[in-house]
Amino acid sequence: MSFETVSENRSFEGLQGVYKHESALCNGPMRFSLYRPPQALKGEKRPLVTFLSGLTCTEENFTVKAGAQRAATELGLNLLAPDTSPRGQNLPGEDDSYDFGSGAGFYLDATQAPWSGSYRMYSYILNELPQVIARHFPEVDLDRQGITGHSMGGHGALTIGLKSPETYRTVSAFAPIVAPMQVPWGQKAFSGYLGEDKSAWEDYDATALVKSGRRTTRILIDQGAADQFLEEQLRPELFVEACEATGQPFDLRLQPGYDHSYFFIASFIEDHLKHHAAGL
Amino acid sequence: MSFETVSENRSFEGLQGVYKHESALCNGPMRFSLYRPPQALKGEKRPLVTFLSGLTCTEENFTVKAGAQRAATELGLNLLAPDTSPRGQNLPGEDDSYDFGSGAGFYLDATQAPWSGSYRMYSYILNELPQVIARHFPEVDLDRQGITGHSMGGHGALTIGLKSPETYRTVSAFAPIVAPMQVPWGQKAFSGYLGEDKSAWEDYDATALVKSGRRTTRILIDQGAADQFLEEQLRPELFVEACEATGQPFDLRLQPGYDHSYFFIASFIEDHLKHHAAGL
Repeated sequence: MSFETVSENRSFEGLQGVYKHESALCNGPMRFSLYRPPQALKGEKRPLVTFLSGLTCTEENFTVKAGAQRAATELGLNLLAPDTSPRGQNLPGEDDSYDFGSGAGFYLDATQAPWSGSYRMYSYILNELPQVIARHFPEVDLDRQGITGHSMGGHGALTIGLKSPETYRTVSAFAPIVAPMQVPWGQKAFSGYLGEDKSAWEDYDATALVKSGRRTTRILIDQGAADQFLEEQLRPELFVEACEATGQPFDLRLQPGYDHSYFFIASFIEDHLKHHAAGL
Repeated sequence: MSFETVSENRSFEGLQGVYKHESALCNGPMRFSLYRPPQALKGEKRPLVTFLSGLTCTEENFTVKAGAQRAATELGLNLLAPDTSPRGQNLPGEDDSYDFGSGAGFYLDATQAPWSGSYRMYSYILNELPQVIARHFPEVDLDRQGITGHSMGGHGALTIGLKSPETYRTVSAFAPIVAPMQVPWGQKAFSGYLGEDKSAWEDYDATALVKSGRRTTRILIDQGAADQFLEEQLRPELFVEACEATGQPFDLRLQPGYDHSYFFIASFIEDHLKHHAAGL
């Protein structure tokens, strides 16, 4: 399979790379960002934390805006930031909305045509991309993985983390969409990718997954109290209620004054990476 | 004079703002970014460090890519990031080159038509912008200022710092153009903005200024050893030689493996802010 280096930059004594590979699941070339701390460059097997980005993002936003490399070097963590959808599929309407199609893969495997032929970000993140990492970066320890993400990517981190606790030992999220079945962003995406049968939606809804008995280690969630999407799209109280009812451990921190931007993520990424490092 | 808030985001308990004001010197609206740490938001008078950006940049690059807010909060520093040139002047060729005209003001006062009517970034940075800060952000302590910058902005920091040591008590630079009279970027810009009489160029050349007897406090310079512009455009050895010959104190750190990008700046911004905090 083709694999190429798009760019590599020294950063905090580690190496910030962007790479491109041919994805079978996503039916074309996909980019991802991988930061390797100095410990990894010296050949040490170090854990991997995957950061899933939100609507409209590519692998670049987290890479250049979150300032995560500093803490990753301190903690000796590899950081993986995938893209948020397949690209260039030429599907009707693919690029028309910011919240559906390109940039908005929602970390699920679409079942509805024409999306089902390439919009398979769930399996891409869980299976295909780690295989690429294993092949090209053998120093990354895939037996010690954590997952986090922002907004749509927080939804991805919670759902993927809850469904594969044996793969992802640690889970956290920034301003996640916790109950996509109950909010406009999720309803639009799930209708389009999964169809109108709502029983198929539950498998990609963190709140429904917790209610159905899925469990993982203590989840750290940071949420800005001044987030413009808090009340309509994010609704962390729905997830809190499900966790409290079923015994899923969590820490939800409501951060006064913070909004939905990367300034918020940058302010708390160190805490999240420490959460992952402690559990890995 | 008109003044408006473009955006404000909570960041590391401080406030990252972008503001727009009408500039008399630059003949139109100018944007700048100002980070105020939590100490300043509580009304404490805290020092100001100005970061001058490089070619093609606006106020945004440093603001979103350098990760400087964390250290600014720790050290209690205000951070100012101006734009790099006037905008929208509709001068012939203004937007044709990445290294001349818009995005490439070179922190000088142009003397050649048509640039002399608005390309006056030297006086804008030294005089007009601090007055705007004083008017709208009285908690910023303009009696304690430091200056730094990257590439073209490193040139700006060195020249402005060397010429106004009473205003800027501390000076540092990332991968600065230290001898613009001797390198292609500087020769193109100085010819266009200042004309062919090279005696007028010396006033904006850090190496010439040091040779002519200008002095400031110990200058910290970081330079990536893998910087693609090192040998042709940056040439730190020319500045080192002038400093050593004349007794200007400096620390030049050649950083193995680092290039010209913001990944380099992010890796060392904390050291620079500590350098400024210690002297302010």
